[in-house]
Amino acid sequence: MPEIPVFDYDAVLKAVDPLDAIDHVRHGFVEYASGEWVMPPKVYLDASPNGDFRAMPAKGAGVAILKWVTSFPGNRTVGLPVVMGVICVSSAADGEPLALVDVRAVTALRTGAVAAVAAQELGREDARTVGIVGCGLHGGWAARCLAAAEYGPGLVYDPDPEAAGALAGELGWEAGLLSDALECDVVTCATPGSEPVVRAGDLQPGVHLNMLGADGPDKAEAEVGAVERCVLFCDEWEQASHGGELTGAVAAGRITRDRVTELGAVITGEAPGRPDAQAITLFDSTGLAIQDLAICLAVLEAHRAGTVRGSSVRL
Amino acid sequence: MPEIPVFDYDAVLKAVDPLDAIDHVRHGFVEYASGEWVMPPKVYLDASPNGDFRAMPAKGAGVAILKWVTSFPGNRTVGLPVVMGVICVSSAADGEPLALVDVRAVTALRTGAVAAVAAQELGREDARTVGIVGCGLHGGWAARCLAAAEYGPGLVYDPDPEAAGALAGELGWEAGLLSDALECDVVTCATPGSEPVVRAGDLQPGVHLNMLGADGPDKAEAEVGAVERCVLFCDEWEQASHGGELTGAVAAGRITRDRVTELGAVITGEAPGRPDAQAITLFDSTGLAIQDLAICLAVLEAHRAGTVRGSSVRL
Repeated sequence: MPEIPVFDYDAVLKAVDPLDAIDHVRHGFVEYASGEWVMPPKVYLDASPNGDFRAMPAKGAGVAILKWVTSFPGNRTVGLPVVMGVICVSSAADGEPLALVDVRAVTALRTGAVAAVAAQELGREDARTVGIVGCGLHGGWAARCLAAAEYGPGLVYDPDPEAAGALAGELGWEAGLLSDALECDVVTCATPGSEPVVRAGDLQPGVHLNMLGADGPDKAEAEVGAVERCVLFCDEWEQASHGGELTGAVAAGRITRDRVTELGAVITGEAPGRPDAQAITLFDSTGLAIQDLAICLAVLEAHRAGTVRGSSVRL
Repeated sequence: MPEIPVFDYDAVLKAVDPLDAIDHVRHGFVEYASGEWVMPPKVYLDASPNGDFRAMPAKGAGVAILKWVTSFPGNRTVGLPVVMGVICVSSAADGEPLALVDVRAVTALRTGAVAAVAAQELGREDARTVGIVGCGLHGGWAARCLAAAEYGPGLVYDPDPEAAGALAGELGWEAGLLSDALECDVVTCATPGSEPVVRAGDLQPGVHLNMLGADGPDKAEAEVGAVERCVLFCDEWEQASHGGELTGAVAAGRITRDRVTELGAVITGEAPGRPDAQAITLFDSTGLAIQDLAICLAVLEAHRAGTVRGSSVRL
């Protein structure tokens, strides 16, 4: 079998900048909404009590990917990443392996990018200020993507003041309190999802909320009462209703399918987005394999253009 | 992220010999039957008209694997392998990647090994001669594993006389006609499954049939009338009834769940195997991720023992 390129964390971030990531992820949602790209449901492999593995396939633009990715929340305490794994990229025409790509960088970029896409589609026309709640890997890349999309200035919050200070310093933004972050035009939450950070009483008219943290059962960043007060959007209904921010409200019978619009339908114009400037919009990002595919395509393009080399492996 | 070892085709075959493969695969069936190893259903990603991808997770012995594997039958005509891909091996304790393993070698070894395990469990006590129908990669490794398990001599058949001659020469067996192969004690079919090679009238009393080739919908190596006449076994009922040798007979309502025994239950003694020396037994091998896991564990053991090195990659 031929040698194939391997793109590690640094190579992916060198290959794809935040604006590239936003363009590719937006395009991926359009292709998925129009049926051009496909994505079978993700499969969970339980590895309790410590975590789980997810196998996420997708196909589009002549390429098929399989993302093999972990969530081991307790890894934080032992200095290991929560999210680890690899994305296998193959030709959809003949199955030949094309590349192996680090999962952390792709996940961070696609998660950050969708926060910017959702803000562009669902935020107020005049929305500018950004509140970041949670300054870990995904909060950081959401901030970078929002800044690249010309949102800002931002107010970032993290229980760890060093993490908040570092991100604020990098972007020329400020670190502050949770309540300060929640007063911004575009609020992006990227916490572990183990306890809600948004209550109903925190919601300002006209705010747009990106909820990035709840990516599995029993995780939530907003109280059900807060979710209920919002105009609701998600990346994909099945994932969002079973392992996302909306899951608690769906399980409690407080919201139903007809109240929730998928982001792709808003981008393609099939469905309305924000109803008016006073509405509170909430986007539940559970993370889709088509977003990963979009970033992998960007990496392959950069590789073909000679922007990035990667190492190589013979399989 | 640390460097992880990569085991290509040659490294896997150097690490694990046929007897090792048989031992590990047998152990995998026992662990799976007793609930120690787990395996969510495999996911198909359609890539018609040329083929498909399969994502196959499994967990056991502290390790989680994801096999990303193709079936592109038309690749034969352009000189590319039908089966390509990679197996990602991770620690089930913390999700850390442990190795990348070539999929072709693992698939060939585990498919060959299960043919030997099934012959040992289901063949007559005095069964010795081996008929091989189809001398491609999987037919070849089934022959090598059966020879390692002290079956033989064998009679091998392939529409391509060169393929048959090469395999016969390697093992000191003979090449012959399809009808000669079907007269042996243990008949192993490893054809593309596009047309039946076993008819009801071909079945000799006391024969054991391993059917390795039908691994997806609309594939079969035996006519429904032949399947119906056998005492039936499979690796896993869900896979066998939906995308295996048994699928046609199940769809036609000619056999039901209660007529089919899983191999693991025979190995552990939970269920009876061959009823008597005259019975015709048929084992439907669809290929399980737990078999791949078993071979990957053997590769890791060989690596720890220094028997094989592999290259390495930083992800």
